[in-house]
Amino acid sequence: MIRVGILGATGTVGQRFLQLLERHPDFVVSAVAASDRSEEKPYVEACQWRLPGDFPESVRALRVRPCEPPLECDVVFSSLPSGVARDVEGRFAAAGYPVITNSSSFRMDADVPLVIPEVNPEHLALIDLQRQRTKGAGGGGYIVTNPNCSAVMVALALAPLHRRFGVTSVVVTTMQALSGAGYPGVPSLDATDNVIPYIAEEEEKIERETKKLLGGYADGAVQPAALSVSAQCHRVNVTDGHLGAFRVKLERRATLAELRDAWTTFRGLPQQLELPSAPVHPIVVRDEPDRPQPRLDRDAGNGMSVSVGRVAPDTVLDWRFVALSHNTIRGAAGAAILNAELLLAQGRLLRPPRAVERAPARG
Amino acid sequence: MIRVGILGATGTVGQRFLQLLERHPDFVVSAVAASDRSEEKPYVEACQWRLPGDFPESVRALRVRPCEPPLECDVVFSSLPSGVARDVEGRFAAAGYPVITNSSSFRMDADVPLVIPEVNPEHLALIDLQRQRTKGAGGGGYIVTNPNCSAVMVALALAPLHRRFGVTSVVVTTMQALSGAGYPGVPSLDATDNVIPYIAEEEEKIERETKKLLGGYADGAVQPAALSVSAQCHRVNVTDGHLGAFRVKLERRATLAELRDAWTTFRGLPQQLELPSAPVHPIVVRDEPDRPQPRLDRDAGNGMSVSVGRVAPDTVLDWRFVALSHNTIRGAAGAAILNAELLLAQGRLLRPPRAVERAPARG
Amino acid sequence: MIRVGILGATGTVGQRFLQLLERHPDFVVSAVAASDRSEEKPYVEACQWRLPGDFPESVRALRVRPCEPPLECDVVFSSLPSGVARDVEGRFAAAGYPVITNSSSFRMDADVPLVIPEVNPEHLALIDLQRQRTKGAGGGGYIVTNPNCSAVMVALALAPLHRRFGVTSVVVTTMQALSGAGYPGVPSLDATDNVIPYIAEEEEKIERETKKLLGGYADGAVQPAALSVSAQCHRVNVTDGHLGAFRVKLERRATLAELRDAWTTFRGLPQQLELPSAPVHPIVVRDEPDRPQPRLDRDAGNGMSVSVGRVAPDTVLDWRFVALSHNTIRGAAGAAILNAELLLAQGRLLRPPRAVERAPARG
Amino acid sequence: MIRVGILGATGTVGQRFLQLLERHPDFVVSAVAASDRSEEKPYVEACQWRLPGDFPESVRALRVRPCEPPLECDVVFSSLPSGVARDVEGRFAAAGYPVITNSSSFRMDADVPLVIPEVNPEHLALIDLQRQRTKGAGGGGYIVTNPNCSAVMVALALAPLHRRFGVTSVVVTTMQALSGAGYPGVPSLDATDNVIPYIAEEEEKIERETKKLLGGYADGAVQPAALSVSAQCHRVNVTDGHLGAFRVKLERRATLAELRDAWTTFRGLPQQLELPSAPVHPIVVRDEPDRPQPRLDRDAGNGMSVSVGRVAPDTVLDWRFVALSHNTIRGAAGAAILNAELLLAQGRLLRPPRAVERAPARG
Repeated sequence: MIRVGILGATGTVGQRFLQLLERHPDFVVSAVAASDRSEEKPYVEACQWRLPGDFPESVRALRVRPCEPPLECDVVFSSLPSGVARDVEGRFAAAGYPVITNSSSFRMDADVPLVIPEVNPEHLALIDLQRQRTKGAGGGGYIVTNPNCSAVMVALALAPLHRRFGVTSVVVTTMQALSGAGYPGVPSLDATDNVIPYIAEEEEKIERETKKLLGGYADGAVQPAALSVSAQCHRVNVTDGHLGAFRVKLERRATLAELRDAWTTFRGLPQQLELPSAPVHPIVVRDEPDRPQPRLDRDAGNGMSVSVGRVAPDTVLDWRFVALSHNTIRGAAGAAILNAELLLAQGRLLRPPRAVERAPARG
Repeated sequence: MIRVGILGATGTVGQRFLQLLERHPDFVVSAVAASDRSEEKPYVEACQWRLPGDFPESVRALRVRPCEPPLECDVVFSSLPSGVARDVEGRFAAAGYPVITNSSSFRMDADVPLVIPEVNPEHLALIDLQRQRTKGAGGGGYIVTNPNCSAVMVALALAPLHRRFGVTSVVVTTMQALSGAGYPGVPSLDATDNVIPYIAEEEEKIERETKKLLGGYADGAVQPAALSVSAQCHRVNVTDGHLGAFRVKLERRATLAELRDAWTTFRGLPQQLELPSAPVHPIVVRDEPDRPQPRLDRDAGNGMSVSVGRVAPDTVLDWRFVALSHNTIRGAAGAAILNAELLLAQGRLLRPPRAVERAPARG
Repeated sequence: MIRVGILGATGTVGQRFLQLLERHPDFVVSAVAASDRSEEKPYVEACQWRLPGDFPESVRALRVRPCEPPLECDVVFSSLPSGVARDVEGRFAAAGYPVITNSSSFRMDADVPLVIPEVNPEHLALIDLQRQRTKGAGGGGYIVTNPNCSAVMVALALAPLHRRFGVTSVVVTTMQALSGAGYPGVPSLDATDNVIPYIAEEEEKIERETKKLLGGYADGAVQPAALSVSAQCHRVNVTDGHLGAFRVKLERRATLAELRDAWTTFRGLPQQLELPSAPVHPIVVRDEPDRPQPRLDRDAGNGMSVSVGRVAPDTVLDWRFVALSHNTIRGAAGAAILNAELLLAQGRLLRPPRAVERAPARG
Repeated sequence: MIRVGILGATGTVGQRFLQLLERHPDFVVSAVAASDRSEEKPYVEACQWRLPGDFPESVRALRVRPCEPPLECDVVFSSLPSGVARDVEGRFAAAGYPVITNSSSFRMDADVPLVIPEVNPEHLALIDLQRQRTKGAGGGGYIVTNPNCSAVMVALALAPLHRRFGVTSVVVTTMQALSGAGYPGVPSLDATDNVIPYIAEEEEKIERETKKLLGGYADGAVQPAALSVSAQCHRVNVTDGHLGAFRVKLERRATLAELRDAWTTFRGLPQQLELPSAPVHPIVVRDEPDRPQPRLDRDAGNGMSVSVGRVAPDTVLDWRFVALSHNTIRGAAGAAILNAELLLAQGRLLRPPRAVERAPARG
């Protein structure tokens, strides 16, 4: 088993990591770290568990460590707040740890892969460049990022269309869940009987990450996809599940049947390799007139499938549809875990030698 | 005082009519009619009052009448369900009553005005054509409609831009309130912790009504505006207040300051005539990054102003913004009342002679 | 496998039955019946699936049957609305079917067991009396009921205290979930930003069912428990999970530690027999100051455990606490299934002979 | 006009003060103070306005002052958090200001009146004792408190019964609104689809404040009422309006008609003196089976009336009923303002001399 350390273990996404890893076939949580006054407490005391369901037994007694290397593990999963992530994650990578992070700090760095395994696994080749650079600095670890919780839905919904028909423009309007803001996050007086038409930096993240995710890899660099992305983001009174209303313009003509086919037949490396967290159907197309809905569809594919519905011709662009995905599973912890599963399958995550190599760094 | 009869008086919009007319300077409710088993009961018994605030005293004792002429009033306000509206309203018009209706049945008829007083008051000239036609049939009443609750927000938000810069395309994604579906309306299990990406016929209504509202009037006919409208509609967990996320393409270049100016200086006939329900500012522009919000802004201008915010350049069309309006006030009962106030100011609503004229119809 | 027929299969509780039976070790759904215009349609078309998660594959193609015998099954589970339940269920029992029902119609009948397997399994002896009566009428089937969704929580929370200390009075104030009203159920305009201090007949049901459940069985009759029950019921804006705030007066003095012990050590026949749906801990005691909470704790024990918290001395009665249980699992479908599992373990549910016996009834 | 200074002016209750005083006949806000980094900013910039409706024009430009004397005003209204209230309010009283406070710090002090003007106005006589004590200390100002937001509902609902029939025990279970926790207050992830069975110190406050409020005044001291109070408190997903489910035991027998009469005829000094904020009916009795409801009834009497409903005999105590009141109006800002109006009517608030007296303190 690969030993995993969780950075930001007491937060909302940190808790999802622990929940999803509770019975994982390849990963076991061996260390929890948090940046606050909870250090050295047993995790069960340091963490106010906010997820439905029971506290994960296997980590109750783990002592909370500070967020700095060394950490008793082979790989680090991070959900640190962006304020501290860049510095802390950088230090872990420099100390030789693979860092699989949900934080936004490194996503747009030229030699850092921003990856959805079904969409752009070839970007992982950036790891080699990254290691060359950091190895010189004494490290040899690396950083792999997954996208923003809405960008992952946008890129997954678009990828099958982009491959087959070419997407030239996308206009997406999101209705995002409360858990996306963490805990305590959105005050209830703002959420109840209300919609907030603003999420800090979210529109920008969707616009730029989508282009990197759908971009091509060549000569050691990612070339952003040549499409225009317009995002308007809203916080709605939903616990989990981000919904997006889309209009897209395509390069090539398509019929409704061809769109459906592009989505329903879409498979990627995770499905081929049968990775443990890979959903059988990355995209589920719903034909009912009123689906997908967050409460009913967010758990499709154990929270790893994107549900698409209401596909119809559009009067301004070419097509319209809505898409939904679980923002803390496919949009955060599950995304990072799937990245790690792919790295493991590709031999980019190793166990025994690293434990030894890392020893001197502890000195 | 003009005596008003309310058709559909026990429904959600019917109750808003009564609430808004409770202390109106020109209109007094003299008759309430409903299509159900509540006939002949006192209104206070027939109606389960669903609005915050007290039951309107002045109508407690009115007996509920059937929805057919004659009715003890000078003008009829209607919020009948579309299934019965066309037939019933048609009979009232034929019997000589001005019918000011919130129902959708007649909105797209060629000689029926679909009017927002600040936007296209000149369309009221259609009344003359209509009366010519129906007078021959023995009547002489007429029908005036107000738009769908979302279309009124779309058309009001666009009107100042359309006049000054020409709107060629609009992409609007709505997040609509529960009260828009009436009572009992949306089941709570569908509303709680959820978004429903579907409202029956709503997208079509917004797309076609917006063009008629922004259209020109010439030679006895309305020429629909030549703009493309794309609407995607969602029901969110909000009691009152429809929010729309907009992208627009303009014919002429504009700056952010010019857009703001177009909205904030926008005034119409209701403001000029100082009609009782006219808001001082038909459009309120909010500069905070997170406004407008339904709970905080729906009551702007006593529910008659549209609030606009988050104005910014768009990456696919030209501009983006969000707009909000109160769906049962500006979007329904208040819209009809403002139409009636304008008709009264224009001398198209008369009191004493009609009472006499109508007498024979009662026989 | 015992073949199960579901009466009221398209409703909220009917859907829970199907979901919970999807992978049951002893029961398989062989027939679905509904009282509406859905007859003869495949279930997947007749039913608008309202539960999170996927449609149960195994019943997709079953044709919906009318709610009358004969039905292709060995036992009938019912969640019919009370208006029709008495008549329909009576006819199934008369035709020789064991009827395990969640409906309220027969609950207070003298020879019908009202049972929570952990609390009063001995009441099942009433079945023999019942069969004697109905066998004379040609039948030989029987009816077993489970309690109202709140009464089950009240009786389960009280049972350990009643056994050990004697409960003389209980004052319970409930905050009940929306799903308890079925679908469409509570209108969203009543649920959002609101509490409704009324649920039809609920207070009466809790008051009388609790006494029967905690009552003793002797000489072929249930003697209601001699305690006073006061219930006030409220509908709150929660999807699933009924919460109750309790004060109790006890016959014998108890300490907080003794109360805790009574609850945490409480076990019943289902735990002894290791019935498939039996939770390991029928009562879970939470020590955090702010638990149990519906969203976090309703799924304890797969929705079959009652969570108790905030135990403290009371200033008017003796003790106060709050309790929570899942209203459509432990409070409805799960309750009926656990009853059936106990009946099966006790040899009161048989398979093969009945299939033959029933044949003539079809003629 | 009496000039009012608001302590804690940027908080939720502070904003209510400003909203309610916006057009008050006797009070005008002349100073706003806040304990944070907002000092010296114009109020419009320091305060993120969270109430529906427009920002109060009259205070936009006021500079935010520190929370310490002197302050440019004749009386101080306070809604400071309890952590700082005792110290700050004490210093204002010592400096000669009447302090009308919604904070809990001084409520249970022996010589500080805890007052609901309709219930126990005679307790204001404590002011004289207080001034004797503090005058010696150089001051001469005084402190008057209003109750906790739930205690005010409990005491108002009980007062008419206590006067006429004697209340010996009350068991109240509250379902309290989110605004009671201030802003940001309750995280939305705790509020949505949930109930929290805990509000810090709330049960204790209700239990002890109710006894002081219903207590008698004699010989310069308040004698707590001899009744037992049991409170269980819950936070529910409602913006405004605290609901309580009550059972009461009475000393003297009463009929339902007598209870109704006690409530509907209940009047106090504020009604006699026609104070500006006094509701015509302090208690409104609703006879519908499903009222009062927070969303529909919280604004009764402009938020100053308590609504009572569901009155019925109880099976454990004598009677049960539910009551509702607006927690930030009658339960906070409105309570303090009504106290101030009574003090003004009684000549305990004076304007001109104090302005002079205080001048030297400014040096």
